[in-house]
Amino acid sequence: MSQSGHIPARGFDTAEYQRRTAAAQRLMAAEGMAAMLLTTEPEVRYFSGFHSQFWESPTRPWYLLVPAAGKPIAVIPTIGVAGMAATWVDDIRSWSAPNPGDDGISLLTDALREQAGDDGRIGMPLGLESQLRMPAADFLELCERLSGIEIRDARPLLQRLRYVKSAAEIDKIHHVCQLTSRAFEALPEHIAIGMSEREVCRVLQMDILQRGADNTPYLIGASGPGGYDNIIMGPGDRLLHDGDVMIIDTGATYDGYFCDFDRNYAFGEPGDAARRAHEVVWHATEAGFAAARPGNTTSDVYAAMQAVLVEGGAAESGNDVGRMGHGLGMQLTEWPSNRPGDDTVLEPGVVLTLEPGMQFAPGRQMVHEENIVIREHGAEWLTHRAPLEMPVIE
Amino acid sequence: MSQSGHIPARGFDTAEYQRRTAAAQRLMAAEGMAAMLLTTEPEVRYFSGFHSQFWESPTRPWYLLVPAAGKPIAVIPTIGVAGMAATWVDDIRSWSAPNPGDDGISLLTDALREQAGDDGRIGMPLGLESQLRMPAADFLELCERLSGIEIRDARPLLQRLRYVKSAAEIDKIHHVCQLTSRAFEALPEHIAIGMSEREVCRVLQMDILQRGADNTPYLIGASGPGGYDNIIMGPGDRLLHDGDVMIIDTGATYDGYFCDFDRNYAFGEPGDAARRAHEVVWHATEAGFAAARPGNTTSDVYAAMQAVLVEGGAAESGNDVGRMGHGLGMQLTEWPSNRPGDDTVLEPGVVLTLEPGMQFAPGRQMVHEENIVIREHGAEWLTHRAPLEMPVIE
Repeated sequence: MSQSGHIPARGFDTAEYQRRTAAAQRLMAAEGMAAMLLTTEPEVRYFSGFHSQFWESPTRPWYLLVPAAGKPIAVIPTIGVAGMAATWVDDIRSWSAPNPGDDGISLLTDALREQAGDDGRIGMPLGLESQLRMPAADFLELCERLSGIEIRDARPLLQRLRYVKSAAEIDKIHHVCQLTSRAFEALPEHIAIGMSEREVCRVLQMDILQRGADNTPYLIGASGPGGYDNIIMGPGDRLLHDGDVMIIDTGATYDGYFCDFDRNYAFGEPGDAARRAHEVVWHATEAGFAAARPGNTTSDVYAAMQAVLVEGGAAESGNDVGRMGHGLGMQLTEWPSNRPGDDTVLEPGVVLTLEPGMQFAPGRQMVHEENIVIREHGAEWLTHRAPLEMPVIE
Repeated sequence: MSQSGHIPARGFDTAEYQRRTAAAQRLMAAEGMAAMLLTTEPEVRYFSGFHSQFWESPTRPWYLLVPAAGKPIAVIPTIGVAGMAATWVDDIRSWSAPNPGDDGISLLTDALREQAGDDGRIGMPLGLESQLRMPAADFLELCERLSGIEIRDARPLLQRLRYVKSAAEIDKIHHVCQLTSRAFEALPEHIAIGMSEREVCRVLQMDILQRGADNTPYLIGASGPGGYDNIIMGPGDRLLHDGDVMIIDTGATYDGYFCDFDRNYAFGEPGDAARRAHEVVWHATEAGFAAARPGNTTSDVYAAMQAVLVEGGAAESGNDVGRMGHGLGMQLTEWPSNRPGDDTVLEPGVVLTLEPGMQFAPGRQMVHEENIVIREHGAEWLTHRAPLEMPVIE
């Protein structure tokens, strides 16, 4: 794991992609899949190492096939060939996209037919929390052209693969957690009552970048007198007053891996209810941490946190977030969820957020979040632990 | 249009959403659509004003219906209700997501049935350049539950609506184009031979943010001796040497609107071929600008640029980007494309990028890009015009 001052190397050894592909192929063999078709940025990057900001452009589809044996096969727009050729992938097929007549579907059909023949089985992510980054009409067209071939949901298989992180992945997540923690700790020196939410978040954003993050795709700020009413909007132009509580939640990235945690700040004197709520969510996080050990489940982690919240005055029915933390890695939020009924068994190498939240008064929430990795003996913090009491800004 | 120093207001008046919705409803009526179902961030934001970074989390689907009459209807995770309630949308239906048993599909089916009855017609974006941000299995399930209802591609209708920007939209795009232009112009003072691509891009990123952009979701840097071989990877750790050419392409945002343009820099003496190629793409951009007037098409703009490139030594077959510029607005790249056969007629209020590129030697490209808005009399620059000769970095 990275120490302070250590900056993890960019990218991964080819051996990492070989291991990922071999692990996928073992699970595919168990399901009789001749190939798996992937369309989203993290899925393509996970198996190929293709790492480009160009996914920000929604115009062109990109396809990667994981065959039953051998290296992945790329079916991509010509604009990406030079970049893909720099990865470990050898078989790269391309077309000049965008092409309204045939935006890669013929090339893709041929590549899948080569693997699955007339009546084989292929996997595509279809289920909960998955998306296909291709036009729906092309998906339907592909299904038709692949008649005779069975298309099965590859989502469980992919979730399973990405669930346990390698040492190199954890190193990157740890790095961005650490530098973002330091930026949060330095923030009180640079902000004051009278600044706007947006100004406060800008100070943090610049510091996170100066400390070495690549970007801050997610940086939320919300505030209100004695508490805030949501955790996914903002920052706005609201000015911070004596008595406010502000939450800042951030997903910063380093080399394509995210942190995702928050800090709460008291502006002047926000009152006992808010202070007490912060202590409750802080202790709930401790309970989640203690429960987050191999053999326990995500539901156990939820239950441990929820017990502290209910003891502290939260509703039995839970918060309106739908869960209290989740997987973390190449995406801000990944499978699984810390929620009742999720029941995913924890293992060493799993990275999670612990995110207990409660409504402690009408329209006032308190949410806390830290990032952890599961080890043989139990959980380890990836973030610096937040203080029990909210830092006070004057 | 914004002047230097003017900062466009955040958000839009309710009248803007009313106009957008009414315009959609006129086009829907012409196609007999009882409702339109939208699932992506820009589509939901365009009609509702719901503007949240939370879309970075891929876990939960979000749905917005535009009915044949009246305001849009939101069918969203509970976590988003407070944020959606702050928009002009009144009818908000929610469920506690993620819910593996039914992640909003029953609520969504009911809402669509209310509009389309037993045998109406609904629109969803299905075709080229569109995506459905929902699990494919839920899309198939929805189609089944909506049996009797016809699902038609709403992509042409949506592209048409978003093609012409309002004055308030153009003001935001202009603002981020202007501040990013100034950051590009200031860059030579702060960079030098011996820095890495990543360091150069970091200097620019921080300056763009300091000048008031919200974020830099797209900031590419690529370099090489006498030219670069791609425009979508990087920046990497390559050190810049005397004789290099570096391209930096950036999509920075202000209030949810993008700029998308590039600048090329010469490090020391990159040679005549690169200098000449820069002049060619610069002149091609001028030709595209002259052709970009109401009544002409995107294909005319392409042809005007391509003629200059061919005259300057580029291949007749065009570059490997597949087009030379595109629409711009809420997304880094939007419909239409400046390419042969696109044939979209230009109108006042259309925002485009002009992006001529050529391979001028094996493995060496030169790509230039500016942003323009179409007015009654012809095109106007949104960016500061790049210099004819590449700035030289020593």
